[in-house]
Parts: sequence; C-alpha cells; structure tokens
Amino acid sequence: MAVDGTEQRALQYEQTLMYGRYTQELGVYAREEAARIREDGRHRRFISERSPSIKLLEYEKGRCVKCRICAVHCQRFLMSRVGEDWIFLILLGLVMALVSFVMDFCIALLLQAQKWMYGGLDSNVILQYLAWVTYPVVLISFSAGFTHIVAPQAAGSGIPEMKTILRGVVLKEYLTLKTFVAKVVGLTCALGSGLPLGKEGPFVHIASLCAALLCKFMSFFGGIYENESRNIEMLAAACAVGVGCCFAAPIGGVLFSIEVTSTFFAVRNYWRGFFAATFSAFIFRVLAVWNRDEETITALFKTRFRLDFPFDLQELPAFAVIGIASGFGGALFVYLNRLIVQFMRKQKTINKFLMKKRLLYPALVTVLISTLSFPPGFGQFMAGQLTQKETLVSFFDNRTWTKQGMTEDFNYDIHSAAWKHPQANVFVILVIFIVMKFWMSALATTLPVPCGAFMPVFVIGAAFGRLVGESMAAWFPEGINTDGTIYPIVPGGYAVVGAAALSGAVTHTVSTAVIVFELTGQISHILPIMIAVILANAVAQSLQPSIYDSIIRIKKLPYLPELGWGHHEKYNIRVEDIMVRNVRYITLNSTYRDLHEILLIANLKTVALVESAESMILLGSIERAQLQALLSQHVGRERRLEFIRDAERKRVSVVSTPSSEEGGPKVNHEVRFQISTEESSITPARPISPKPLKPALKRTSTAEKNIEIPTSPQDSGIGLKNLLCARPQTDAMENNNMEHTVAPDFRPLKRVRISVLEDPDAEDDMTLGEIEEWEEQQLDEQVNFNNCKIDPAPFQLVERTSLHKTHTIFSLLGLDHAYVTSIGRLIGVVSLRELRKAIEGSMTVKGVKVRPPLASFRDSGTSGTSSESEATELHKLWDRHSGLSIPREQQPNASDSDDKSQ
Amino acid sequence: MAVDGTEQRALQYEQTLMYGRYTQELGVYAREEAARIREDGRHRRFISERSPSIKLLEYEKGRCVKCRICAVHCQRFLMSRVGEDWIFLILLGLVMALVSFVMDFCIALLLQAQKWMYGGLDSNVILQYLAWVTYPVVLISFSAGFTHIVAPQAAGSGIPEMKTILRGVVLKEYLTLKTFVAKVVGLTCALGSGLPLGKEGPFVHIASLCAALLCKFMSFFGGIYENESRNIEMLAAACAVGVGCCFAAPIGGVLFSIEVTSTFFAVRNYWRGFFAATFSAFIFRVLAVWNRDEETITALFKTRFRLDFPFDLQELPAFAVIGIASGFGGALFVYLNRLIVQFMRKQKTINKFLMKKRLLYPALVTVLISTLSFPPGFGQFMAGQLTQKETLVSFFDNRTWTKQGMTEDFNYDIHSAAWKHPQANVFVILVIFIVMKFWMSALATTLPVPCGAFMPVFVIGAAFGRLVGESMAAWFPEGINTDGTIYPIVPGGYAVVGAAALSGAVTHTVSTAVIVFELTGQISHILPIMIAVILANAVAQSLQPSIYDSIIRIKKLPYLPELGWGHHEKYNIRVEDIMVRNVRYITLNSTYRDLHEILLIANLKTVALVESAESMILLGSIERAQLQALLSQHVGRERRLEFIRDAERKRVSVVSTPSSEEGGPKVNHEVRFQISTEESSITPARPISPKPLKPALKRTSTAEKNIEIPTSPQDSGIGLKNLLCARPQTDAMENNNMEHTVAPDFRPLKRVRISVLEDPDAEDDMTLGEIEEWEEQQLDEQVNFNNCKIDPAPFQLVERTSLHKTHTIFSLLGLDHAYVTSIGRLIGVVSLRELRKAIEGSMTVKGVKVRPPLASFRDSGTSGTSSESEATELHKLWDRHSGLSIPREQQPNASDSDDKSQ
Repeated sequence: MAVDGTEQRALQYEQTLMYGRYTQELGVYAREEAARIREDGRHRRFISERSPSIKLLEYEKGRCVKCRICAVHCQRFLMSRVGEDWIFLILLGLVMALVSFVMDFCIALLLQAQKWMYGGLDSNVILQYLAWVTYPVVLISFSAGFTHIVAPQAAGSGIPEMKTILRGVVLKEYLTLKTFVAKVVGLTCALGSGLPLGKEGPFVHIASLCAALLCKFMSFFGGIYENESRNIEMLAAACAVGVGCCFAAPIGGVLFSIEVTSTFFAVRNYWRGFFAATFSAFIFRVLAVWNRDEETITALFKTRFRLDFPFDLQELPAFAVIGIASGFGGALFVYLNRLIVQFMRKQKTINKFLMKKRLLYPALVTVLISTLSFPPGFGQFMAGQLTQKETLVSFFDNRTWTKQGMTEDFNYDIHSAAWKHPQANVFVILVIFIVMKFWMSALATTLPVPCGAFMPVFVIGAAFGRLVGESMAAWFPEGINTDGTIYPIVPGGYAVVGAAALSGAVTHTVSTAVIVFELTGQISHILPIMIAVILANAVAQSLQPSIYDSIIRIKKLPYLPELGWGHHEKYNIRVEDIMVRNVRYITLNSTYRDLHEILLIANLKTVALVESAESMILLGSIERAQLQALLSQHVGRERRLEFIRDAERKRVSVVSTPSSEEGGPKVNHEVRFQISTEESSITPARPISPKPLKPALKRTSTAEKNIEIPTSPQDSGIGLKNLLCARPQTDAMENNNMEHTVAPDFRPLKRVRISVLEDPDAEDDMTLGEIEEWEEQQLDEQVNFNNCKIDPAPFQLVERTSLHKTHTIFSLLGLDHAYVTSIGRLIGVVSLRELRKAIEGSMTVKGVKVRPPLASFRDSGTSGTSSESEATELHKLWDRHSGLSIPREQQPNASDSDDKSQ
Repeated sequence: MAVDGTEQRALQYEQTLMYGRYTQELGVYAREEAARIREDGRHRRFISERSPSIKLLEYEKGRCVKCRICAVHCQRFLMSRVGEDWIFLILLGLVMALVSFVMDFCIALLLQAQKWMYGGLDSNVILQYLAWVTYPVVLISFSAGFTHIVAPQAAGSGIPEMKTILRGVVLKEYLTLKTFVAKVVGLTCALGSGLPLGKEGPFVHIASLCAALLCKFMSFFGGIYENESRNIEMLAAACAVGVGCCFAAPIGGVLFSIEVTSTFFAVRNYWRGFFAATFSAFIFRVLAVWNRDEETITALFKTRFRLDFPFDLQELPAFAVIGIASGFGGALFVYLNRLIVQFMRKQKTINKFLMKKRLLYPALVTVLISTLSFPPGFGQFMAGQLTQKETLVSFFDNRTWTKQGMTEDFNYDIHSAAWKHPQANVFVILVIFIVMKFWMSALATTLPVPCGAFMPVFVIGAAFGRLVGESMAAWFPEGINTDGTIYPIVPGGYAVVGAAALSGAVTHTVSTAVIVFELTGQISHILPIMIAVILANAVAQSLQPSIYDSIIRIKKLPYLPELGWGHHEKYNIRVEDIMVRNVRYITLNSTYRDLHEILLIANLKTVALVESAESMILLGSIERAQLQALLSQHVGRERRLEFIRDAERKRVSVVSTPSSEEGGPKVNHEVRFQISTEESSITPARPISPKPLKPALKRTSTAEKNIEIPTSPQDSGIGLKNLLCARPQTDAMENNNMEHTVAPDFRPLKRVRISVLEDPDAEDDMTLGEIEEWEEQQLDEQVNFNNCKIDPAPFQLVERTSLHKTHTIFSLLGLDHAYVTSIGRLIGVVSLRELRKAIEGSMTVKGVKVRPPLASFRDSGTSGTSSESEATELHKLWDRHSGLSIPREQQPNASDSDDKSQ
C-alpha cells in the first residue's frame, strides 16, 4: 500500500502540470483525493464548531462557580475577534509586501548577473552566447525541478485554481507551506531567467497561500479562523493583496481580483480587499523609498504625459482601432496557448519522452527563446537586451521616436537606444518584437514553472500601442490640427492604451484600465483607455474564453462556466430538460439490503431520503459516508462480535467476571479499534485529526503505522467484500464529476476491516459460511436511521426553473447538486455536471435528456413526451393524494410560482 | 370611494417625503399599495411569459406550412437580443449624458442669473439682499411644489429607494415618466438656487428612471425587457451611469453604485455598467468640447499638482489625521441629518402647521441659509459669493494661500480672492465655512426637493483638507525636509484627500477615492487618499450607518440591514432563536372552514401547505390570494347560483331552452362578472391589464367606472362579510412588515361582491338565512386544491442555520420569508422582519424568542427550554415515524449538514 501510495502520488503530480496531464484516469484519482480532503475539512469544521460548546459544557459542568471567569473569557474572545480581522489583514499586507519587495530585489539581482556575464564576455561571441543561453536554462530547469519536487501544484498561474477554490471546491495541497516555498522560489528563478513571464498570477496564489497559512497560524490563538466562510472571505481579500502588491495598484488589484476570481461578489468584503491591498501597496512602495530607490512614493512605471491636452478628440478612432485589434490579439493569444498545450498532450511519443525527461521541455523552450533574443543575433531586431521592465519604461516614454528619425536625439537614454537599428526601421523592429514576443509568451506560459501571462501580454500590448502611436506621430508630425496650438502626438499614451487593452482582452477584465492608471500614475488618458479596453473585451469575449477559463478547461478543474451574455436561447431550457430522472433514493422502510445495493450501484455523493416509494416525499438527504457507516455498523464485525457475545452470554447464563487473561488482549483490541473508527467517521462526535490539508496517503504512512498492513482486496474474503472494496470503474469514468466527491469514502471503511482482520483469532469463532448467512440475515432488517446525520433541507428546485435561474442559484450558493421536486415529491436531481453540460451546449450525455430550445414554447401538455415513460412511472406512484397532482394544463402556474419562490 | 381614493392618495404622498411621514398608519397603507402593484407585476410577468408560447401555439396550429417563417422570426428574435443589450446601454448612456449636460447648462444659467441680479443691484444693499434671498426661495418653492404635485416620490436622493428596488422590492411609482419629469425639473431648480445640494444621488435615480422607461419603450419592439431579472441588471447598470455621467467618472461611478446599491454583486453585470458609464461620461465630456467649453476631453475639476514629488512620506500622518477626523465628521453629519428629520417629525405642532403649509418649510430653510451666506453680510466670512463649483476649484488649486500671506500674490484669480478677508485670517474663514456649511448641508438635504448630499459633503471635506493643508504649509513654509531639494507642501492635495475622505465616510464607500481621481484627473495622491478614505470608513462605520441606510431607516423602507463586520457574536444566533414557531398551515385534508379561519387570523403572505397535521411534512406554500380565490369560488355567489340552477334543473327536470327575457339580463350579467373576476385573479390564465405601475386607485376610477359604487362594509350583510371586509387592524400594526405584502388581496374580492350585489334580484331567490346555511354547509367540505397554484419549493432553512448564513441567503436570493423545516417537517417560519429585528438587536418583539448570545454554547439538550412548550407540541404530532426524529443529543450534526446543504 505504501508503494502504491507513492506511485500514485508521483502520477498525481503530473496532473497539476499543464502539459503533464497525460492520462485522464489520473485526474479522476486526483479529484477523489481532493474530495476526500474536502470531506475531512467538513468534519474538522463540524468538530471545530462543536468543540467550544463541548469545552464550555465540560467547564460549566465541572465548576459552576467559575462561570464569571468564563464570561470574562468570552468577552475577551468576542472583543479580540473585532480586532483580529484588522490584525490579520495588516499582517497579510505586510508579509506580502515584504515578499514582493524581496522577490523583486532578487529578480533584479539575477537579471543584473546575466547582463554582467553577457557584458563581461564581449570579447567572444560564442562564449557570450553560451552564457546568455545557459544562464536562463539553469534557472528555468532549477525552477521546474524545484517546483516538481517540492510542490507540483505551485506550477502555473494559480488564478484558475483560486477561482475554483473561491467557488467552494477544495483543491488538494493548493494552500500549504510547501506550495508557498515552491511558488516563491520557483517564481523568483523563473522571472530571473528573463523569459517573457509574469509575476501577477502567481502572486495571487502566493497571497492566498499566505492568507491560508496566516489563518492556520492565527487559529492557534483565536477561534474564528476555523470558520470556512470567513476563510473564503479572507482568501478573496488575499487575491486583491496579491495583485495590489505586485503592481503597487491597490484599487486595480481589488477590482482585478474580483473580476478574475468571483462570480457573485459580496460587497461587504470590499473593504477588506481595499484595506489589505492598500496597506500592502503602501509598504511595498515605502520599502523602495527606504531602500533609496525612490525619493517618495510614486507609481511603478511613472509616465510624464502632458496634463493640459493629453489627446485630441480626433485621435479616438486610433484608440478604438487599438482596442479592436487587441481584442482579436487577445483571443488569438488564448487560442495559441491552448493549442500548444493540446499539441504537446496529443503527441504520444513526445509525451512519453517528456514524461521521462521532465526538465527537457523547459530547457528546450528556454534555449529556443534565449537564442532568438540573443542581442548580437536575432535579438538585435527585437531589443533583446532589454528586460521586461526596461522595455515597458521605453514604451511609456513621452517622446516620439520617429519624428526625430535616426538622429542623435533618439539616443538620449539607453533604453530607447535599443529600438534604434542601423539597417532596420523602428516600425519593423516593433513589428518583429510583437510577433516574436507573442508566440514566445504563449509558449513560455505553458512551462511547468510558477509563472503568469499578464505581464508578457501587457508588454506586447504596449508594443502594439507604441507601434500605432509612432505611426500616428509619423503621419501627423505636427499633431492633429486644433485651434492654433500645436499639440504633438504622444506615442507613449498609445502604448498605455495598448497595454491595458491587450491585457484586458486576454484576461477578460475591464479593471486592467485601473491597473494601468495606478502603474503609470496618470489618469489623463482615462477615456481612450476605457474605450479601448471595453472594445477589446467585447471582441475577445465573443471569440475565446479568458486565459484563466481556458486553463480551467485544460486542467479540467471543477468549475461552473459563466452564462455568456447574449446567449438568451439558454433561457428556454428548463431544469426538467437537463435533470437526471432516475434518482437513487432510500425510503424510511428501506432495508440494509437496499442500502447495500444503492451504495453498489450509484456513485452519488448524497442519497435522497424519501418517505416511501409511493409518496416520494423528499425528507432530506444522507451522505454516502453516513450510509456506509450505518451499513458497516450493522453488519460489521463489532456487531457480529456483540451478537456472538450475546449468544455466548445466553449460553453461559451466569458468569460474573471475565477471566483476566481474556481481558488483556480485549482492551488492547478495543483501543486499536477506536483509533480506526475515528478515522472512518462512524462516530462523528469525536475529534478527528485537525489537519485535513495534508494528503491522506501521507497521514496513513505516519500516524497509523501501527495498523497499516500491505493488503489487497483479496485479503478480505468475506461476503461484503464487493461493497467495501469494489469500485465500479466503468461508472467512475462516466460520472467524473459526481465521483470526484464520492470515492474517498471507501478508504476508511477498508481500513476498518483491515484493522479488524489484523487479529483474526480474537474471538470471532464463526465460519465464513456462518458469517455470510448472518450478514444476509442482517441485511433484511429495516434500517434504523437513529444515529444517522440527515440533511433535512437539501436544496430543491422546481421542474420549470429556467437554466438561467438554476445557474444563478448554483453559483450564488456554491451548490454541487440540487433535487428537483414537485409538491414535495422527488422527481429528479441536477448536479453541477448536468448544468455544465447544458451550458456548454453538449447535451448529448448519457442520462441527460435533450430537448430542442423551443420545446418550452410547445403545448405544455405535450412537453413531457420525450421523457414521458419515466415521468409517468413516477406519477403513477403518486396516487395517494390524487386530488393534489398538478393538472398538466396549469404548468405556467408552476413557472410563475417558481419565480416567487425566489 | 373616489373621494376616499384621492384623500388616501394625498396622504400617501406625504409618506414619501422625509419630513412628511407624520403617521405610521399611512405608511402601512402605502406599503399595501406597493405590494399590490408588485402582485400585479407578477401577474403581468406571468402573462408575458406565457403569451409568446400562446401566440406561437396558435400560429403553429393554424398554419403549419409557415413554420419556416416562424423559424426565421425566432432567429431574428434571438439575434436581435444579442445586440439589444448594447443598443440599450448606448441609448441609456446617450440620454443620460444629454440630460446631465443640459441640466448642468441650465443650472449654470440659473446661478449666473442670480449673480447677475446680485451684481446689478449693488447700489442698494437691501435690494441686493432681497434679490439674493427671494431668488432661491422662489426656485426651491417651485421645486418643492412641482415635485409635490407631479410626483412626490421624486423628492430626496433616490439612492435609498434604488437600493431597496435592487433588493427586489417593488416601490410604487418610483420608476415612472412623471417621476422622471419631476426629478429633472425639481433638481435643476433646486441646484440652481445655490443651496448646498448635490446632483449625484438624484442622478442615480434619474438614470434608473431613464432605464426603466427605455425598457418599457424597447419592450414595444422586442420581448426580453419584460424579464424581471434582466430589468434589475439594467437598473444596476443605470445606477453606474447615473454617477458616471454626473461626475464624468465612469470607473468611480460603477464602483460607487455597486457599493451603494448592492449587497451581492454579479460580476457578469460589471461590463454593462462600465460600458454604459464610459459611453455616458464620454458623451458628456464630448458635449462640453463641442460646446467650446473645453479644448479636449479632460477631468471636470482638473488639478495640476506636480508629478515627480506629489507628497513626502512624512506628510502621511497629516493625511491619516484628515481621514480619522473625516470619519468622525461623516458620522456626525449622518447623525445631524437624522436628528433634524426626527425633530421635525416629533414636534406635533410644527408638524401640523407644516403639513398645511407645505412650501413653508423649504422656504424658511432657504431664507435662513441664503441670509447667512449673503456676501455683504455674514457671507463675507464664508466665501458666500462662490458657487459650489467655484469653491471646489479654489480648494483644489495647487498654490498655497498662507505662505504669501495677504500679499497681492493671493489675488491672482477671482475664486481664491473670496477667501481673502481684510479682517479675518484665512484659517478663520475656512473654519467658519466648514462649520456653517456643515449644518446647512445637513439641513438642506432634508428639504422635500430632489437633492443629494454627496456634493455638499464633498465640498466640506475639501475645505477641511484645505484647512489642514494650509496649516501644514504655514508650519513648514519650506516644505518638509528631504535630501536637498525643496518641495513645498501642496494644500490642494490635502483638499483632494479631505474631499474623498469625508464623502467616503458619509456614504460608507471606498470608491470615492476613484471618483476623486477621475474628477481631478490626477492619481498621484493615490496612497494618501486611500489611507484617508479607509480610515474615515473605519471610524464612520463603527459610529453611524451610512447616509443612505439612515434614510432607509427614516423612511422605513423594506430593506435588510447589513451584518456589520466585527459583530461576530451574531454568529451564535440560530434560526431557531428568531423564528416564529406557531406557523399557520393548511393540510391536504383541510376544510374550507379552516381556510376561512386562517385567512381571518393570520396576515401571512403565503400559507404553508403540509401533508397532515400529524406528519407536518411541508409540501409547498400557497399564496393568500389563491386561497381567497379558492374560498370565494367555493362559497361565492356564482357557485351558489349554479347550485340553485342545478336544484332548479332537477326540479323542473326537462326544460329545453331558457326563456328569452331571462337570457337578456343573464348575458349582461355574465359579461360584467367576467370583468370583475379578471381583476380578482381567480382565473390567472387570463390576460390582466398590463400596466401594473399605475396606482390601483386610479385604474379603478377610469377603467371600471361602470361597476364602481360608493360602498361601505355594511352593504354586504352576508355571512362571510367578516372575512372579506374585516381587517385585523391590531395585527396590522404589529405585523408591519409581513402585512405590507398581504393586504391588497382584499380589494378585488370586495369588488367582486360589490358587482354582484349591484343587481341583488338577478335570480338569487335564497333568503339571507338560507344563504348562511348554505355557506355553513359548503364550508365543511374538504378543500379541492386542483385549481390552486402551489409553490412546490418554498425556501427552507434548518433550525440550526446561523444568523449569518440566513442573512446571506436572504440577501442573495432576495427572499422575504423562509420556512424552517426539520426532516421535511415544518417547525417554523422566519421572515425579513424577524431577521431585521435580530440584526438590529431589538429582539424583544412579540412572537420572537429571545435567547442570550451564548445560548448556543449550552448543552444542546437544553437549548430548547425557552420554547419547549411549542416545540414539544409539534414534536408530539410527529410520532408516526418515531424512529426518525433526530435525537436531541445529536444537534451539532444538523448544523454540520446544513453547511453541506449550501
């Protein structure tokens, strides 16, 4: 089992790398693991909710006199909570500002080192080339290797994962200290290599990691940071801090993080983000002042455009052109990025090779990109010697390059000089720069290192804007005519517009405009920028998903896609069209055999509990784990032993005390058994190990070594083997989504059996045949739901609820399934998966009814035809209150009333 | 009845004015009316949802050959929808920009006229004074009178109402053309008077009005603008446009409108707001360029602070001081504003007098304020001759006033000269200005004219900032020392910071910072502004509600207050603590008598339908109107007549044709009856008059004159009189909130009776005694729910749901009540009212259980003690499945599983 574990873990790592997700089955496993963690998290939450009451209870019971002390404690506790938010946000801002500053410092050092090497070797071009290329290869390889070994989850941007986490899904290992270390170190090296990579996406992730770790840290002192909804609020604030301290852009950071990570945003969290991001940006810039880099707090890429006449109205068409072109460019970038990933995945041979030589792909890509940007080589045509920052500074410069032509005027500073080439026009160089950087960035962002795509895209956008600006300046050397005064065209303003537009198009956000204002420290171009950004968004959104949504799809993260605007035909789809009609349910009169069968057949996370098969009145839902616990409690070994003991007792009649030599091993066994049942969540009131974020496999190998035995399903040759160990693999492939929150429940049960099997000679003197017979007998008994946690109000929808409304409710409440009822009767279930399929338009999945969009317009009396067989089957069951069944002709009422149910 | 109507209408108007809400009973009536409109709206929506399908159905049935044409139509329909959003937003932006520009133009004209008059009469101070005072008095009186006559809803800011509307509550007449006219005209006059009033709040309302009217207008062409959720999305965008085109601040507008109006914001609506606001701001500024006011598009209050060293780090404490002081100031402003309103209301004698002389209060206030700001009088100490705009421009000036002292240097422009006084120091003048304007603004915003508080507060904030800035400049005349270079202090920057901080504190928003950037066109002070705004918010939010929430409370609008941050003790309150336990319900076996009783006793909007009193399984909820329809259908006159006819038929046995003289009046009567049943919503499938926004009373007076008879309850002397006419007034006072969506249902029924009573000799030959006997007999029959609309999935909560979660769900889904169930059994109901009470902390209302905050920490077995009697009563009923009842000891499970139900 330990061997199994490490192997699976190793495989699983690959799934987190974008290019490394070679097989789908592994993904399934990873999702199971994630779901398992989530389950654990729930238990922990439940316990943390309960524990204070338990503690208090014991306290009060024990010493009623000390009630006053308790009250004082509570008071202090409540008071401290008020301040804790502030303290938390300040700490978060401080830490992130430090991280950002130190990382920037290290990156600058690394880049300087490369320049120094390159400059020092100017005697020999080949040596120069080797230094130029090997340096980034080493850094990228180290980054990829380090990330791979320490925490493969740290690779990539992190924003897609944060989006999924904020949606309510718990991803395994995404918020651990190891990931934090891997991300920080990996990102520093990756950016230090000089490849076109950004730090913005990873910073969102780093800030969230920081927040999660701080939460953990602070939960040692206070209580509230164990509250899940609070943690999510803090994560949302952390995302804002991430962007805020990366660009020293607090407002843009808050807005960008909202746009990128949220579907519905709670306005009451707004101030948190602003507060933390402002504090973080402030500290980040103050550090620069203290470090004597700056005289006072100013913008990161300060521009000096004229204030009194920033642009002419007649320049607006040019800005609009930038916006539209950026929209197409942004869509192309997302498409190209996805194409590269998919190409790498499809090629089986490349795949296999790269899987073995994990560092080869990053190294090859780095060599390619470095070679092309080698300054004495092709790099001279694309300003290869400039770093990203220098490039941006030169683009945002407020002096034109073309009007002065190739005069010495152009050489005023080192950065702009890079754009001057004796043979080539500045336009040609810009075009080459844009084209080369475009595919380079798309390629570089697929590397399995921590990296973002925002900054490279930002630079390309700025280049494109500069190109248009320079063209305009060349076209109107005297400026566009206004009343007498000559206002020459400012190409730097165009660069700013282009940067905002292209990054907005790629990320599908409007707030890049605000980020740009804060980055440049000037807001005078607000209207051109807003116009360009909105146009770019309009174009890009109608062509491609955002880069983050694209990655979500590539990684197959469990996320609900947005209902695009303009897709109003979706309004015609009703829940009844997409719901799964053959719901598995148990009734109050179910036997344990029914339970057994349901657990075997269905892969549902929760099972519906109805009053009876005739009435189908939904009473609630029970989690799979609960049912399993019920079942194993009823037919498990403990009960069997008890049964035997009872029988024995009856037989022996009067034996007052057990013999001492029997007591020894018995106690021993009981203690052992308790440990394992704790893990199997049969007794949910017990405190469970409060570290759910650690991988389950690892916990197994450390904490429970004593009962861990390498075992295979064959070991347990008892009647219920098939329930406890068998996994319907074919279904698992079908029910990807459902299953990823289901399967882990098997594990603890398995372990229970194992621990029991450990000493097979304890006192179990039944033969296998006898056991089977006993189990069969037990299975026919009616289920006793007394000790079962029932969720009494699972979320219910009505059959006529529109897709639009369903989507809203699912994303508002973070549901993953909802039952469809009709006057209390359960008639179907709809899960995230069906909803996703319906939205993505591929509604031809097994079990999902397809109905043409106009079906709802038809006579409501015939609307059920496509699914009549199932529907009537259910309706037949409902004849107890025949007077109650809604007449079919009145269906519009149902849709009306479902409006009101909101 | 007609007399009644106008009287009531006149009374009702008062309720919408802040100072005019003299009696609570009137408010109740107004709320009923609002609820009635809402009901109508629902019916209309239901019909509009149904109508296309009906049309299509008829189309297809009639001519199946023309299916292709239909398909083309559909295609075009769908395609047009995609574009319609854009068209709508562009139109909205355009119209609002025009409105804003024209209004600004008119306001400028009006202000100029005052100046001209004042200037022209400089020979005689008394004439001058008369002109100075009468001019605003006339304007304000006209504004108040016009608003009062045309649409009293137009008075005040409008943001509180928009907040309530976006919460899902339909307010009567708030979005009509009349209100639009009243608001635009009233606002222009009010601002033209020169009082310290703002246009920002009203502009939010105007933009929403514009959007609502555009929606109506566009629904003539396309279909989708009848969709309610879409309309709300558009209203949200409109709010952004309102702020955006008022300040030419698209980004700030979007953010401010989100902060001010939303609780949960759908990020997918973000682009709408940005697009419309940007377009609107663009047009607004372009109009200024075309009008030759400006050379190109720039900021409204352009500043020219130096870019390279905007402020020194050592100035930050001063900015923080501004922030904290502004926080206190903002809270004080809100308090003062509320105090004035409450004072005016409490004084019975003043009240009565002002109610008669409606225009006296505005006139008196105007005289007071104008007199004090009369430039040759006290106005010379507070720059009384400057308009709001000029004041702001002078505050934002980047030159200091103090360093030059009283030299001629100070006189460089007319605006700054106003701050120079031969006798008084500039500090003294600023202090006087701040103090005077503070109470003046608080007073002026209580006037019953369309006016906002944002701009006055903004100006006061700027003044305070300038005061601090000038003090700093006087303190450090050479600037705060840095490395060699002298950077003098810029008091204008302080003014900007102060403006943002104070307006942020009053409105509890952070986005005033962004508005300030866009207003001034400079972002260099971003960090000081953000710090000050956040500090101001922190202080203000902990002291007072925002000005808008304060107005919501004053006007008693149905809005759910926010859960303040830091109030974590609220987490300990569970739904079971606040829910109403004696829920009224009907069962499947209820008789019509039960229905009758329930309708008599309870004032619920909807009644819960349970399976039986023993099981208490919640099957759904039925609206009150539906039940009333059921009841009146069953014991109404029509059925009685039918019953008589049947009896007759049986008696006469074989009569083939009715006599002709009987047919005449019968047909006549039937037609008449149909009209009235249409109104009474007994047959919901019929198309109901599609103008729900008009007041119900007016429709009565026009459309149904023929059946309208002045009548009093005494007229209907029949057995059910008490049901149909009696209103439990005592309860109505108690159940304010519940009732405001309930009572209107009475009206249509009353009318049915009236129309029937009209010809009492038709063929009703039963005596009153017989009728009563017959009714008694009918009442004992079991209810037939066949034709009844049942909401099959009313929202359900679990008893252990926390207050925090309940609040979230209520505000997310816009609920106004939710049933509390326990494994399908109905155990309580919680409505907006209970929730509001619980949040506001006043939990001592009748019917609401009070439990100390720590109660949840207690042994869960005893948590029900305070309400045990009721609880056990219900639990006793539930003995059919005794095995199912949750064991009390396991209560934490319930709370755990309710987490999962999300």
